[in-house]
Amino acid sequence: MAKEITPRSEDYSQWYNNLVTKADLAENSVVRGCMVIKPHGYAIWEKIQAQLDKMFKETGHENAYFPLFIPKSFFSKEASHVEGFAKECAVVTHYRLKNDPNGKGVVVDEDAKLEEELIVRPTSETIIWNTYKGWIQSYRDLPLLINQWANVVRWEMRTRLFLRTAEFLWQEGHTAHATREEAVEETLKIINLYAEFAEKYMAIPVLKGVKSENERFAGALETYTIEALMQDGKALQAGTSHFLGQNFAKAFDVKFLDKSGKLEYVWATSWGVSTRLIGALIMAHSDDNGLVLPPRLAPLQVIIVPIYKKKEELDQITVVAEKLLEELKNLGLSAKYDDRDTHKPGWKFAEYEVKGVPVRIAIGPRDLANGTVEVARRDTLEKNTYSMEGLASKIPTLLNDIQQHIYDKALKYRNSHIHTVDTYEEFREVLEKEGGFVLAHWDGTTETELKIKEETKATLRIIPVDIPREEGKCIVTGKPSQRRVLFAKAY
Amino acid sequence: MAKEITPRSEDYSQWYNNLVTKADLAENSVVRGCMVIKPHGYAIWEKIQAQLDKMFKETGHENAYFPLFIPKSFFSKEASHVEGFAKECAVVTHYRLKNDPNGKGVVVDEDAKLEEELIVRPTSETIIWNTYKGWIQSYRDLPLLINQWANVVRWEMRTRLFLRTAEFLWQEGHTAHATREEAVEETLKIINLYAEFAEKYMAIPVLKGVKSENERFAGALETYTIEALMQDGKALQAGTSHFLGQNFAKAFDVKFLDKSGKLEYVWATSWGVSTRLIGALIMAHSDDNGLVLPPRLAPLQVIIVPIYKKKEELDQITVVAEKLLEELKNLGLSAKYDDRDTHKPGWKFAEYEVKGVPVRIAIGPRDLANGTVEVARRDTLEKNTYSMEGLASKIPTLLNDIQQHIYDKALKYRNSHIHTVDTYEEFREVLEKEGGFVLAHWDGTTETELKIKEETKATLRIIPVDIPREEGKCIVTGKPSQRRVLFAKAY
Repeated sequence: MAKEITPRSEDYSQWYNNLVTKADLAENSVVRGCMVIKPHGYAIWEKIQAQLDKMFKETGHENAYFPLFIPKSFFSKEASHVEGFAKECAVVTHYRLKNDPNGKGVVVDEDAKLEEELIVRPTSETIIWNTYKGWIQSYRDLPLLINQWANVVRWEMRTRLFLRTAEFLWQEGHTAHATREEAVEETLKIINLYAEFAEKYMAIPVLKGVKSENERFAGALETYTIEALMQDGKALQAGTSHFLGQNFAKAFDVKFLDKSGKLEYVWATSWGVSTRLIGALIMAHSDDNGLVLPPRLAPLQVIIVPIYKKKEELDQITVVAEKLLEELKNLGLSAKYDDRDTHKPGWKFAEYEVKGVPVRIAIGPRDLANGTVEVARRDTLEKNTYSMEGLASKIPTLLNDIQQHIYDKALKYRNSHIHTVDTYEEFREVLEKEGGFVLAHWDGTTETELKIKEETKATLRIIPVDIPREEGKCIVTGKPSQRRVLFAKAY
Repeated sequence: MAKEITPRSEDYSQWYNNLVTKADLAENSVVRGCMVIKPHGYAIWEKIQAQLDKMFKETGHENAYFPLFIPKSFFSKEASHVEGFAKECAVVTHYRLKNDPNGKGVVVDEDAKLEEELIVRPTSETIIWNTYKGWIQSYRDLPLLINQWANVVRWEMRTRLFLRTAEFLWQEGHTAHATREEAVEETLKIINLYAEFAEKYMAIPVLKGVKSENERFAGALETYTIEALMQDGKALQAGTSHFLGQNFAKAFDVKFLDKSGKLEYVWATSWGVSTRLIGALIMAHSDDNGLVLPPRLAPLQVIIVPIYKKKEELDQITVVAEKLLEELKNLGLSAKYDDRDTHKPGWKFAEYEVKGVPVRIAIGPRDLANGTVEVARRDTLEKNTYSMEGLASKIPTLLNDIQQHIYDKALKYRNSHIHTVDTYEEFREVLEKEGGFVLAHWDGTTETELKIKEETKATLRIIPVDIPREEGKCIVTGKPSQRRVLFAKAY
């Protein structure tokens, strides 16, 4: 495999596109804005899914499945929701094709026009709350803690593989509660769960906080988010958890009898992460040689490659390699022995490097003689000679080291890219020269937020929840501010 | 929970609908023909998915994801495919809504009309083979063994939960091979895999065979199927595996350089099972009390229910129950202790019975005194007293017994409902009085097949592959026949 990845320093955006292609993760399809997720990319998504699903279930959530289509009228039931969502979407208007009377393929059958158009779900609050109406009568039916793994469609004009596509895969949680307190607690529980997942599994440090009114989810009272920093200094929203208040319950008339026998509207949350996380994973850790995957999300953790000239050498190596493979599998690791004779070791090295396999073990005739192997780490590209003796048992520790090292590196980068500024001039300078997050005072108005966005392309990423309040003056208007908020250019 | 399930003997169809509702498996959504799969139903689907996915991966397949939308023109590229598929489907014609100028919600923005309409995938051969064109150049790229878990839409006019819905969930395998032999081998490997899954996990005996030309998948040279028998004597197609020859490779111009350097068209297979399997699972095993689930696909295998009057009794039972629960979980079983004080034991018994939990363990004060528990089997409804001593270790065996018993019962029923007939009169009589499969000679023509269908509602289910050939005369036309084939009324 020829390496044809543009270096990050030269063109970050091109580097990303090259990497997605070279690591065989995804490609654009013939359908505008829709991607094909290739086996290697999908395997990463499966690892993400498996871990998140486990965490959702451990916190009492169940999976269900709701229709792909939503009646058009549903979107106008929650006033702010329609403003934020229902515009750019795929609209189903007909339900039948027929043979072209002129004999040229098929045409839409105009007799099969739907009475009401159906929208391919951009998110499912409306159809789900319309369904919940039938499920919730009394406090005994609450809380309802449901998650859905699904595809959704938003007709994005400018798309990029994983980061912004017309169709994407995600999970959307939709919970119903008897009280405001419980719903707020759920919203926080999930944003904390997302943060834990990002840090422990994706090895990506995140900042938690709430969105400004302007950036809030359409229909939410409060949107919590985790924000990660990519290697080009741009932020990426990696997951959101919304406190929806009683907005959807009111829009779809979902009431319950509380313990005192009073009829009340139900409280709601919704939350989601998507295949966008794969984009984050790529941009947070990878290098000019290709993908760097945290071992906990790597579909293949260890690859064993034989180095040989003669058939007898291969046979001897294979005996050792297969024993090692079995030991690694018994330890619960995902490992493979690549003894294909159609490709040279050098080709294989490059292949697994670009695909981000965390550990590569090479075994040659000299190793056999010495009772050693060569172990290469993908993250640091270091190679070390290990004794064959007791090798398998050292690999889990090595994988943990790699996981930790990847996280530490990302954390160091992130922490060195949070700048505190006190003037708009500093703000612009930092953004231009350093990128990253900028902590600044803001007067709390959408007007100022939009002015900053227009003039600097930076958006208000979060109003942090875990840094202390601090009085100050807005960098733009000089008006009083209660706390610094985080700005950044973002994906 | 009040039992409101119509007995099978009274109205089988009503029984099915009641059961799906009472067992909380699914419900019709507000969108015509689309279902909501509720948590209990979805949990069964997750069990089905997990096992099949494991079997696919063990046989070398990888998962990927292709777009939801397919350009309309793709369907007319493979001539027989368009005839069989592209007609009843969801057609996306626009990509934007706008505020109604009259202020009434939202309307379709006529300025946002797609140049070419997009079809919501009814199956993905076309978009996948269009993609494979870019992936396959040489024999080194083959075989390509890909599976997709996805939702698909077919605009069915008459729908029934799980059995026939406009949107359903499924997996579709799409493989590409260098030779005809290899593709045929793959087709067979998968139909055997499906049969193994049906028998070992779903506890449903199946008959394997090929479809007649009339019932073949649109675009296939040969369709293999597994057919199961439901308790009302009707057959249900539970999975299909298609040998597609070079039809799609030709339609999408997918060629490869073989080892001798010659450019050849690629050989293809496709295969799938869907959420329909849940319908099969219900109809094959359940009774008038509700769902009966084979333990290997039961989301919850063991439920422990405390029987008590006083709080102190509950406390004592809880100590024992939680120890038991832990032991069961350590054995890898899915178990739960239901100590909710909002519901009485009788209500819980009925609830878990209707939901098909294979084993129920009840513990009361007298049990505590005697060192016993009451164990109830869902399949036979038998109750037995077990000693508390070493109880957990007996449960896996009990679950295996239940799994085997459910299978044996279904097998016995199926075997007693295969009738061999020699005349059309007998054929009609058996169909009317007994139902089930009817083995009869057929002259091999679509004309006769359709005549039988029109006159008796029975369809040709399979041309069996594993019963010996036998010369005879067609029951309708008297023309010569090489083998008996299987007819049945079917879902």
